[in-house]
Amino acid sequence: MNGPLKNLLVVDLTRVLVGPYCTMILSDLGARVIKIEAPETGDDSRKFGPFVKDYSAYFMSLNRGKESIALNLKNNDDKKIFEKILSKADILVENFKPGTLEKWGYGWNDVNKKYPKLIYASASGFGQTGPLKELPAYDMVVQGMGGLMSVTGQPDSEPTRVGTSIGDITAGLFTAIGINAALYDRQKTGKGMFIDVSMLDCQIAILENAIARYLSNNEIPKPLGSRHPSIAPFEAFRTKDSYIIIAAGNDKLFEKLCNVLDIPNVSNNKKFISNSLRSKNIDELKKILEEKLVNKKNI
Amino acid sequence: MNGPLKNLLVVDLTRVLVGPYCTMILSDLGARVIKIEAPETGDDSRKFGPFVKDYSAYFMSLNRGKESIALNLKNNDDKKIFEKILSKADILVENFKPGTLEKWGYGWNDVNKKYPKLIYASASGFGQTGPLKELPAYDMVVQGMGGLMSVTGQPDSEPTRVGTSIGDITAGLFTAIGINAALYDRQKTGKGMFIDVSMLDCQIAILENAIARYLSNNEIPKPLGSRHPSIAPFEAFRTKDSYIIIAAGNDKLFEKLCNVLDIPNVSNNKKFISNSLRSKNIDELKKILEEKLVNKKNI
Repeated sequence: MNGPLKNLLVVDLTRVLVGPYCTMILSDLGARVIKIEAPETGDDSRKFGPFVKDYSAYFMSLNRGKESIALNLKNNDDKKIFEKILSKADILVENFKPGTLEKWGYGWNDVNKKYPKLIYASASGFGQTGPLKELPAYDMVVQGMGGLMSVTGQPDSEPTRVGTSIGDITAGLFTAIGINAALYDRQKTGKGMFIDVSMLDCQIAILENAIARYLSNNEIPKPLGSRHPSIAPFEAFRTKDSYIIIAAGNDKLFEKLCNVLDIPNVSNNKKFISNSLRSKNIDELKKILEEKLVNKKNI
Repeated sequence: MNGPLKNLLVVDLTRVLVGPYCTMILSDLGARVIKIEAPETGDDSRKFGPFVKDYSAYFMSLNRGKESIALNLKNNDDKKIFEKILSKADILVENFKPGTLEKWGYGWNDVNKKYPKLIYASASGFGQTGPLKELPAYDMVVQGMGGLMSVTGQPDSEPTRVGTSIGDITAGLFTAIGINAALYDRQKTGKGMFIDVSMLDCQIAILENAIARYLSNNEIPKPLGSRHPSIAPFEAFRTKDSYIIIAAGNDKLFEKLCNVLDIPNVSNNKKFISNSLRSKNIDELKKILEEKLVNKKNI
């Protein structure tokens, strides 16, 4: 392995998506990753389709570059093997329900006493503390609870999930950031660090202007189809055969757009001369743009 | 500032979302961030609503914890001030169109010669190399080009954007991972590193099972509303008054669900005894579950 994390050993106790996505990134950055799975069943995601010759392509797409061993952490012989790996490891990553590893004797406090240099990262639905910590979670649960589904979809459509498991993936990315920052820190202090990532927190962290809108104007953000809530024009527009995305984020780009569409007067129209005015009058602007786009043969 | 990155100085040449999101994380981790903006206009996002007393809440939500200075990098006096800051910096982050900083004498090659320890991160639409490198991008552009919009929305609905700027945000997260890994590396080598993040690449990196499905079965993934493509039941279901998300990712959870809904026979039904069979027969299963959910008063 090459990359900035080469020569580092990751003990990977993760399953399904959030944890495996994080350890995949660590592997991509050069670390050696040993994934530890429960005997017989293995990672749940080995049962998720699609399958190629009875192997889950879903599982394979998230676990590239990792080594794998089956160990039962409740069995004494297996515990010995596990501890041998742990004693050589730099990083432990896990996404069990909070409390699970404590029960088996491998919570942060126990492990930190024995291996003070080990970085220990836990990704969970709702974090290691707080009233929801006991609850399990899936991507879809935090997409719903975090508010992302409330701003995704067509206006008045049925509930719409982001088409990829963004609740898991963003939490995996934040966990990877925490681990890398802890590696930097460890070189100065010689000490490991506990990283506690909650999937729900990460969903809040990616809501950007939805929160700003609510806090500043008491506006409850709604799904807007393809439309950006604060920038205009910034959405999909009909053309003769399909849709085109137009994203003109400032006055200069809007002027260029109007010139390309042969409607230079539109950019001078006082209803459209600033982003705030374009946002306010977007329905009228959209009509003008789509009429040109639907009828224009070559741009 | 406290946190693993304390005592580090970030020169922040970023605008709008992808770069500012990354430097916000660096600031949250304890780094000192000095944001350099163009005189008069400043960061484009200062013009994005909502506004609180004429200040953009959008801008404020992304630039917390940062210091700010206005410098014209084409002006000689301002260049001197910039270089003074640069000489003390650990990290430079920028999201100009590729080539812009080279033009002003601050490309990676020039800067690396003068400041070999400086970590230099560039986030752009399509990366610093390749046929699209000259093109600017916005979130919406890469959400469309990367395929995320093709799997988000209701079946046959108009194009649907993820309700938050996930194209920018994931690229900001990947950039933060790269910077932290480079900090760890620098402690071993004494050398800075160039980090080249393309927003489009990041969109591909988060597509997870959509790519696996296409590569293994030639199935072109489509929007599925709230339904997960590989796990069932895993979507929003109607109840008497609103919707509820049910995500039962394995046989045990499905059995528990059926027990809670007073339909224990359903989990034994041979049409539903595995995730693959539940996925195959999800329409029938959904009807059974919704009938219970719509009519049941208390669960």
